[in-house]
Amino acid sequence: MRVFRVPQEWRKPEGARVGFVPTMGALHEGHLSLMRQARRECAVVVASIFVNPTQFGPNEDYERYPRDEAEDLRLCESVGVDAVFAPDVRTMYPRRTTVVAVRGVTERWEGAFRPGHFDGVTTVVAKLFHIVQPDAAYFGLKDLQQCAVIRRMVEDLNFPVELRFCATVREPDGLAMSSRNRYLTSEERRRASSLYRALCECRSEAAEGRSLAITLDRVRMRLEQEGFAVDYVAWIDPQTMDPVDRLKEDSRLIAAVRLGGVRLIDNIGLHED
Amino acid sequence: MRVFRVPQEWRKPEGARVGFVPTMGALHEGHLSLMRQARRECAVVVASIFVNPTQFGPNEDYERYPRDEAEDLRLCESVGVDAVFAPDVRTMYPRRTTVVAVRGVTERWEGAFRPGHFDGVTTVVAKLFHIVQPDAAYFGLKDLQQCAVIRRMVEDLNFPVELRFCATVREPDGLAMSSRNRYLTSEERRRASSLYRALCECRSEAAEGRSLAITLDRVRMRLEQEGFAVDYVAWIDPQTMDPVDRLKEDSRLIAAVRLGGVRLIDNIGLHED
Repeated sequence: MRVFRVPQEWRKPEGARVGFVPTMGALHEGHLSLMRQARRECAVVVASIFVNPTQFGPNEDYERYPRDEAEDLRLCESVGVDAVFAPDVRTMYPRRTTVVAVRGVTERWEGAFRPGHFDGVTTVVAKLFHIVQPDAAYFGLKDLQQCAVIRRMVEDLNFPVELRFCATVREPDGLAMSSRNRYLTSEERRRASSLYRALCECRSEAAEGRSLAITLDRVRMRLEQEGFAVDYVAWIDPQTMDPVDRLKEDSRLIAAVRLGGVRLIDNIGLHED
Repeated sequence: MRVFRVPQEWRKPEGARVGFVPTMGALHEGHLSLMRQARRECAVVVASIFVNPTQFGPNEDYERYPRDEAEDLRLCESVGVDAVFAPDVRTMYPRRTTVVAVRGVTERWEGAFRPGHFDGVTTVVAKLFHIVQPDAAYFGLKDLQQCAVIRRMVEDLNFPVELRFCATVREPDGLAMSSRNRYLTSEERRRASSLYRALCECRSEAAEGRSLAITLDRVRMRLEQEGFAVDYVAWIDPQTMDPVDRLKEDSRLIAAVRLGGVRLIDNIGLHED
């Protein structure tokens, strides 16, 4: 497995389908499942490991975000990644004078709670796409709004990249895998799984035909009783991220909560995850 | 020569160097010189013809901008272009939710007189680069700030495109070729050439060691006497577009003026154009 630190060291192989998995490191089974899917579908698999400062707000966890490159590289190699791009901040941002900004789909939910976050995401993904030049790129549906934002960017700017969105990978108790789970104390970790259970109950109630507004009131109350501070919980259209007041086949239930100092997000569809 | 109207019709040929000349049509010798240079340097030459609405301000000449596709295609063919991308507005902008924005180098001069102009330019050039996937792209130095802005975008976002900036082509009397010159009445056309002469005199004075501020006062006065309204005239660094108060080898003299209802821009270096 090759590791490259500067864009000039990478040359896209001609005639081989290149699959790309961008990450911020701190790899877990969710990332590895993306890499395995890329491995099945592409001749060449490239991952990136870069904790992107521009997608963190000033009061967020950029400094303490978990970093363990040696372990991450070992994990990439274990699932058959061919090359890892692991640049430093100065290589990626000699200047920060150009921004790729998506409007509309970025404005609610994570965009409202994390101002500037999605501009950081779209700009770094645009840079990584230009550096790696993948045929296909793999993202986890756990970050549902990120998927919607990147899909919109790729469509609006005609990026020649096929997007592959992959199912959330969960712990045995249902907690969605996330690099930030390691911030949880063992007591918080035990309680964190009720987020997924509460979402599943909400889905059952909605499937039984209750009004969506009522299902949302109830899940919010349940989450608060479990000790979560609720940033949002909503039924949405996954293309536009707009709220829906009636379920369609592709509607999803999204939530962001805080438990102690840790922010957790999750989402489920009507029949999956 | 192929003409394609939607991105899906174009497939980048493998292993062949692709040169790209983006235009808004109304082609003149300036455009053709870019296409000829691309022809000399690349195996495949692609041009685009698209009058991009997002780079025109609300009071600008989008509606009356000259359009003659049949003649433009004939000219492309005459210089050996292989393929022309000529989309309609709806194909290029089913939505306008994503913008590529460059800060700093966009703010003065054309950016100040044409708010939003460069966001329109960078966004459409990003789209065209993704659609055509050129190895090299050709731009005329007549639009000097546009060259600086695109260079900055390509560097900041790591576009895998080599930029080629080519000398301004002039009429026999010195007027820089521009699609907008056809708006000039014959009387205005006669007077328009004094823009270039005034810039050349200013350069001579600066080369003799006069203070740049004094050379700019004098050229501004000369232009106003000739009947031009002067938007700006300045000595600048062509990388940053910042004004300079002392000449360096790459300093350039830039100007924008209005003559009747027509806006003209031009620029010269110390030894060229």
